[in-house]
Amino acid sequence: MIRFNSDYMEGCHPLILKRLSETNFEKRVGYGYDDLCQSAREKICAACDAPDAKVFFLVGGTQTNAFVIDAVLDACDGVLCVDSGHISGPEAGAVECWGHKVLTIPAQDGKITAQGIKKYCNDFYADRYHYSHCHMVAPGMVYISHPTEIGTIYTKSELTAIKRVCEEFNLALFIDGARLGYGIVAEGSDLTLPDIARLCDVFYIGGTKVGAMFGEAVVVTNHNLIKKPIPLIKRHGALLAKGWLLGMQFDTLFTDNLYLNISKNAVDCAMRMRREFNNRGYRCYVDSPTNQQFVILPNDVLNYIKPNVDYTFWEHYDECNTVVRLVTSWATTQEQIDELISYLPR
Amino acid sequence: MIRFNSDYMEGCHPLILKRLSETNFEKRVGYGYDDLCQSAREKICAACDAPDAKVFFLVGGTQTNAFVIDAVLDACDGVLCVDSGHISGPEAGAVECWGHKVLTIPAQDGKITAQGIKKYCNDFYADRYHYSHCHMVAPGMVYISHPTEIGTIYTKSELTAIKRVCEEFNLALFIDGARLGYGIVAEGSDLTLPDIARLCDVFYIGGTKVGAMFGEAVVVTNHNLIKKPIPLIKRHGALLAKGWLLGMQFDTLFTDNLYLNISKNAVDCAMRMRREFNNRGYRCYVDSPTNQQFVILPNDVLNYIKPNVDYTFWEHYDECNTVVRLVTSWATTQEQIDELISYLPR
Amino acid sequence: MIRFNSDYMEGCHPLILKRLSETNFEKRVGYGYDDLCQSAREKICAACDAPDAKVFFLVGGTQTNAFVIDAVLDACDGVLCVDSGHISGPEAGAVECWGHKVLTIPAQDGKITAQGIKKYCNDFYADRYHYSHCHMVAPGMVYISHPTEIGTIYTKSELTAIKRVCEEFNLALFIDGARLGYGIVAEGSDLTLPDIARLCDVFYIGGTKVGAMFGEAVVVTNHNLIKKPIPLIKRHGALLAKGWLLGMQFDTLFTDNLYLNISKNAVDCAMRMRREFNNRGYRCYVDSPTNQQFVILPNDVLNYIKPNVDYTFWEHYDECNTVVRLVTSWATTQEQIDELISYLPR
Amino acid sequence: MIRFNSDYMEGCHPLILKRLSETNFEKRVGYGYDDLCQSAREKICAACDAPDAKVFFLVGGTQTNAFVIDAVLDACDGVLCVDSGHISGPEAGAVECWGHKVLTIPAQDGKITAQGIKKYCNDFYADRYHYSHCHMVAPGMVYISHPTEIGTIYTKSELTAIKRVCEEFNLALFIDGARLGYGIVAEGSDLTLPDIARLCDVFYIGGTKVGAMFGEAVVVTNHNLIKKPIPLIKRHGALLAKGWLLGMQFDTLFTDNLYLNISKNAVDCAMRMRREFNNRGYRCYVDSPTNQQFVILPNDVLNYIKPNVDYTFWEHYDECNTVVRLVTSWATTQEQIDELISYLPR
Repeated sequence: MIRFNSDYMEGCHPLILKRLSETNFEKRVGYGYDDLCQSAREKICAACDAPDAKVFFLVGGTQTNAFVIDAVLDACDGVLCVDSGHISGPEAGAVECWGHKVLTIPAQDGKITAQGIKKYCNDFYADRYHYSHCHMVAPGMVYISHPTEIGTIYTKSELTAIKRVCEEFNLALFIDGARLGYGIVAEGSDLTLPDIARLCDVFYIGGTKVGAMFGEAVVVTNHNLIKKPIPLIKRHGALLAKGWLLGMQFDTLFTDNLYLNISKNAVDCAMRMRREFNNRGYRCYVDSPTNQQFVILPNDVLNYIKPNVDYTFWEHYDECNTVVRLVTSWATTQEQIDELISYLPR
Repeated sequence: MIRFNSDYMEGCHPLILKRLSETNFEKRVGYGYDDLCQSAREKICAACDAPDAKVFFLVGGTQTNAFVIDAVLDACDGVLCVDSGHISGPEAGAVECWGHKVLTIPAQDGKITAQGIKKYCNDFYADRYHYSHCHMVAPGMVYISHPTEIGTIYTKSELTAIKRVCEEFNLALFIDGARLGYGIVAEGSDLTLPDIARLCDVFYIGGTKVGAMFGEAVVVTNHNLIKKPIPLIKRHGALLAKGWLLGMQFDTLFTDNLYLNISKNAVDCAMRMRREFNNRGYRCYVDSPTNQQFVILPNDVLNYIKPNVDYTFWEHYDECNTVVRLVTSWATTQEQIDELISYLPR
Repeated sequence: MIRFNSDYMEGCHPLILKRLSETNFEKRVGYGYDDLCQSAREKICAACDAPDAKVFFLVGGTQTNAFVIDAVLDACDGVLCVDSGHISGPEAGAVECWGHKVLTIPAQDGKITAQGIKKYCNDFYADRYHYSHCHMVAPGMVYISHPTEIGTIYTKSELTAIKRVCEEFNLALFIDGARLGYGIVAEGSDLTLPDIARLCDVFYIGGTKVGAMFGEAVVVTNHNLIKKPIPLIKRHGALLAKGWLLGMQFDTLFTDNLYLNISKNAVDCAMRMRREFNNRGYRCYVDSPTNQQFVILPNDVLNYIKPNVDYTFWEHYDECNTVVRLVTSWATTQEQIDELISYLPR
Repeated sequence: MIRFNSDYMEGCHPLILKRLSETNFEKRVGYGYDDLCQSAREKICAACDAPDAKVFFLVGGTQTNAFVIDAVLDACDGVLCVDSGHISGPEAGAVECWGHKVLTIPAQDGKITAQGIKKYCNDFYADRYHYSHCHMVAPGMVYISHPTEIGTIYTKSELTAIKRVCEEFNLALFIDGARLGYGIVAEGSDLTLPDIARLCDVFYIGGTKVGAMFGEAVVVTNHNLIKKPIPLIKRHGALLAKGWLLGMQFDTLFTDNLYLNISKNAVDCAMRMRREFNNRGYRCYVDSPTNQQFVILPNDVLNYIKPNVDYTFWEHYDECNTVVRLVTSWATTQEQIDELISYLPR
């Protein structure tokens, strides 16, 4: 059985394992006040060309989304995202339970658009009653995932347009980068880490899905955006006691460009996987240049490979075909792609 | 200037004013433990043919919605409503700030449908990952407004079908009755107070918009639905110190059928208003049998009447026409309708 | 049976009742955007000698405390109050449920002291770990009641000292004035409304216990303290639809000094009540110059008067004596005091 | 410099490191639905002699406390703990921000007592107003730490008495076992894991401080105590994507009694440390039989050792002496104790 269900199925990059062993019995102070966290922060700021950015390390994605949104928004404001946005779906209401409404607008290729935001805000502020927008949840932030939940990526021009609308309507721009590496190295991507750091107010660099055991590095480039971050992280239950475990992992990932190098492997494997499917006549449901591929398979093909391949059911395409998600990661090998393809009917 | 903006523009029915004067210097204990609240509860139970229902008096609608939903739902569950549902719009996130996601589905004539609920739940429980619905906000309740936000009403057969789906998926059924009287006495309505009490788990009888200065009477017919109601109401900031003010108003409204009688006046005025518009060639945007009328007016007509008539802008119909909302209440007089019509161009 | 349980047992001042009748059928816009609210705001600002203060009308005390504390505090901060503070006790956790810890310090005569606040803050910021105060709830506000929960009052010099410490530690100062009138007109009080407005950042003028049917007027003198007040009030479920009912009541109370005049009556009655008890040899438990009196009564006296007098049990004084609370209000008459005294054993 | 600041300064036990390497490239499903979690659950149930207990793995202590308290308590109820309880102090309000008040009572040797709980509850339910306890936060749970925040331990008889009072007042009993191993193997302890499992409703076995990199195993022995645990954990941001990392660690710790064996090492080192201090004439501030020692040191001694020893300042004992906390862990060696002692003045 070969598994392509998701990108968080393996442990961590061997260099992290090695470092873990080396530092295991060194005693360090807790909560991120250690040398490894400090070093990782500096390397991340350098990689982002954002020397004054503030960097915080949290453990997982839902936690990080809930923290950032809660920390940035005024109490009564909401967060705009596409209807397929991760915070709007499989996060069990982790944003709402801090009091913030998730305001959804339709997606285009999984992406929010500058026009979509503009229309929402114009409608909101041109509301029918003169006092009515005082009764509605005001948009205070735009949340986007890069790459998106369906593997698509924003271009520099799209993100720049979004940024401009955010400025117009006084919205913070937050990028969920749970798979950030896979977006940056994607074919056709023209967004670099420094671009991202420059164009949004806060984003995070996903570790859990990109080489780390766990961990997300929140980068706040808009200073003063988050008051009192440490007690807020603590009260979210998100302040890891052994903070240096996070620092050590990100320090390793941001040494010698490891983060982007291993991201490239995932994308290369995904692109080859896509070609192999295409060559055999199977089309993709989404044109994704990143590590998540959504393949339309005839149901009998699906039944044929099921004993050997673990995938994620995405949705019914029509009566005879199904969309499945197949995901590569930093750890995927060409041999695993070979094996996957070998299970397809000749 | 004649005003038809809303149904909460006047004070209260004269019988309530009279009773207020009579009881003003009588000393009563606070928080609803008084004789007037007790009497009102008994009369409401009788009117609902629900002798064992529990009745609580709160002050306003948003407060009541937030309380009931918070009190009934399990912590991580959400509430299903139509996308035009009041809790999803102009309540400033008052449901979300107690931690509950509002899950919206499309409306049909402003109403939720049994099929819509069934589809949502089937999709939810047949989710793509075997563990995925643990990551999603589960529907725990259905919220409907009767009449709806656009004045339409549920039939007994519709509500019965909704109730059946709710039972199938273990959803509490909650009816927002901010304008309940206007729905019950509407032309074509076949739902009585006892029907409503029997078919839902909890509902409220709106006073603010139907004859009271303020006040909403929550009727809980599904016993054990709400544990520890009083401290919950208190912590919502919704326990009126002089609770007897609420008891006295509802006791008056539920004496000699006053509540439904004055509701009838609002509907009669609205029906006449509609006829007068129709007779002059103006169509309605919604076929509303209750006190809210949505009339499509040419923009030049609108400009013509604007100096004399206060209405609520609803939406642009097309380039030349606008939908406006005109609302009657228990206090509207035939003379006011005459005056309104007199302002229309001949 | 004569009742002295509390000061919210009657309806409202006759001038309010009269005005209610006069304005009952006048149509007004909702949510506080009406002329009566505007007029009341102006009169309150004038009475406070605070022309630029912002004034909001809410319905009840617990609601107002929860709103103000939530609106003013940063998300992770707490509110300092005495252990007998109302928000720490009989408000059912209405402050905590908005996420804020109530941090208590010992009371002196029911009052917080400048030294107590200073000690708490010094201890807090000189905490044992260098990072530890990031793990603790920081004090962000001081809450005091004037008069206090046991009827005592702050002097101008005490309040000035508290204000100074608040400034030193960057704490907002909030005064719960549910019984404010009774404190201002108390014998020995040297704090006027303008003093209070000048010395705190936000306070409220209680209507429920001082002449109104219901209503509390929040006065924010520290501009920029509360961002986006209206949606915050709305989401607290605290925005009365018929806001003019609040405006009309406060407009009446702040016409011709009615608020303080009727407060004086309550205090005069309380002082006479105290003298009558003292003359008969009964001492007070607290030296309260306001409308709440705490009398130590032998248990046999208590049993003797119980059939005729309704009071609040406060606490057991010793095996043979009990402390009871007897409360006068704006509506108490000398005849009622006479009657009360007549029930005492000769 | 030798460090005895805390017990979360090292990584993890070498057997965990080894296992981490071995399993690193095995692909596993996420969120705790894997074989390692399953195996760990079974071993924990066996060790607790609680075959039907439900076991959940979370990441850290504050997170676990917030989750358990939120999951167990009714919305408006509070949690009783000693004033020195961890949830009442350095958790940044993580309990309050889920809406629950922390109700404190005085500690005896850092411990809550059955009598203290009983007195609190009796006072609460015998409240002065007949309706008053509806306005107060009701105690719904007792929180204790074993060992306590100052290293003391409960005896079986004490815990049994507490359990009995909890049953009497319908309170859930929750044990914070962040350092549970160190309590169980302490000299004089008569509480075993099965005792603890039997005597409380829910507890957790701390991994972060006892051999794991991170992780806390929540054991729910009172079935039906927590409805819908997975979405609740998810919405707390506490559901680790790579759940098997937690399962693997606890599976290792509960193989061949590793958890208690390494706990014993910490206690042995602490006992020797204490003896060495005592032999040199330094007394302890608390009689702690566990891995946290609180030594009273003359200030000049403290200054003398400061360049070489890292400790935690606890409090000023008097003008000339200071209480410091010195903490051993599963990783402490006799050589480290030797070194610590060697820095003391002869």
